[in-house]
Amino acid sequence: MPPKQLFSLKSENIPRATIQRLALYVQVLEDLDRQGNEVISSELLAKACSVNPSQIRKDLAYFGEFGVRGVGYYIKDLISAIKQSLGIDHVWKTVLVGVGNLGRALLNHAEFRLRGFDIIAAFDCDPFKIGEQVSGLEVLCTKRLKEKVHELDVNLGIITTPPERAQRAANHLVEANIHGILNFAPARITVPDYVFVEYVDFFHHLYSLAFHITLSKER
Amino acid sequence: MPPKQLFSLKSENIPRATIQRLALYVQVLEDLDRQGNEVISSELLAKACSVNPSQIRKDLAYFGEFGVRGVGYYIKDLISAIKQSLGIDHVWKTVLVGVGNLGRALLNHAEFRLRGFDIIAAFDCDPFKIGEQVSGLEVLCTKRLKEKVHELDVNLGIITTPPERAQRAANHLVEANIHGILNFAPARITVPDYVFVEYVDFFHHLYSLAFHITLSKER
Repeated sequence: MPPKQLFSLKSENIPRATIQRLALYVQVLEDLDRQGNEVISSELLAKACSVNPSQIRKDLAYFGEFGVRGVGYYIKDLISAIKQSLGIDHVWKTVLVGVGNLGRALLNHAEFRLRGFDIIAAFDCDPFKIGEQVSGLEVLCTKRLKEKVHELDVNLGIITTPPERAQRAANHLVEANIHGILNFAPARITVPDYVFVEYVDFFHHLYSLAFHITLSKER
Repeated sequence: MPPKQLFSLKSENIPRATIQRLALYVQVLEDLDRQGNEVISSELLAKACSVNPSQIRKDLAYFGEFGVRGVGYYIKDLISAIKQSLGIDHVWKTVLVGVGNLGRALLNHAEFRLRGFDIIAAFDCDPFKIGEQVSGLEVLCTKRLKEKVHELDVNLGIITTPPERAQRAANHLVEANIHGILNFAPARITVPDYVFVEYVDFFHHLYSLAFHITLSKER
C-alpha cells in the first residue's frame, strides 16, 4: 500500500504528546527495519518502545491503513507514513554554531545525515577555529551566518556554544530567519514566539537519575 | 537561613513532574548566581524558566523557608535546598562506556564536574582505543568495568556507544550493580526494574522541531 494516501492526513490533528511518541516509534521501527524485519505486531512494538499496547494502537490509528489485523504493521510503510506526517520525509538543512568538543562530535556524528538532518555549515567566533576543516566543513565566522543561511536555504540551527554565548548564537540564528533551534548549551535562550526551541539538557536527566536513586535508597 | 532545616523535607512527596522543573530551576538559579545575583522574585524566575509564576510558587512551596514576601528567593540558599532534596548536593561518581566522538566530547566537558557528576573511568571494547589517554583518563577494556565500578564505588553510567552496542554496554553496567544509566545511544535498552534509565535523544528533539515548523507553515 503506497504512503500516497497519507497526503490526506491532517497532521495538525495529532496531539503534541503523540508527536513525542511518534518520534520514538520511528526510531524503534528504523532499528527493526535495519535488522531485516518486515512486519511487527502492536504488542511487540509496544514492548520495544516501553509503551503500553493500547497506547500504540491509539497513536497509530492516525496511520490505520498500515495495520493488518492478525499480522501487525508493515514496518517500511509505517515509517514512511509517520515521517511524512512529522515533516521528516525530506532533508532538513541545518547549521551548527559553536565548534567546541561537543560541536565537533556532532559534526562527526553519522546519524544526523542518516536521519535526514544534514549539517551543511559550522560557525564559531574564535579566530583560531575559523578556517579549520571539521568533518569536511570549513569553520566560518559567526558574522557570516545570516549570509550563508540565505545562500544555502537552511531550515534549522544547532547551538553548541558555552552557556554564556548561547543567547548571542540564538540572536544570530533568529536574525537569519531560522525558525527552529536545538540548544545543547546548558542555558535558557529567549527568542520570538514564531521560533521553536528544543533543549538537549544532559543535566536535567542526570539530576533526575540522582533523585530517583536517592529516593529508592531512602525507601 | 541555613539549609539545615531541609533535612526534614520529605523528597518522596515531590511529584515527578515537579522534579523535572526543579532541575530546570537549579540550572537557571545557578546561572543567576554566577552573574552575581543574590535574590530573585518568583515573577522573574518564572520568566527566566519559561514557566508561569503560579507554577513556580507552587513548586517552590516545598522550600517555603527560602521565599521572603515582597523580596523573592535567596538564590544560594534555594539552590542548596533544591540540590539537597534532589540528592545532588554531593558528587556522583560516573563511568562512561563508548569512547567515540561523543564520548570524547563528554569526557572533555567541564560542566559535568562543575555540576557534581564526576566521570572517573572510561571504557571501550576497541583494542585500538584501550590504553589511550582521554581528558586525563586511560581508556579501559569494557571487560574490566565491573571490577573498576566496585573498586571506585561508582553510582552512575553513561552510554555513548553506537546504537547496536548500547544493550551490551547496559548489560555490563547492570552486572556491575549500577542503578542509574544515561543513554546517549539512539537505541532503546532493556534493564531490570530497579535500574533507572534516562535517554538523551537528539533526534526526538529534531523531529519535534521539524514537525512544528512544517505545521506552522501549513497554517
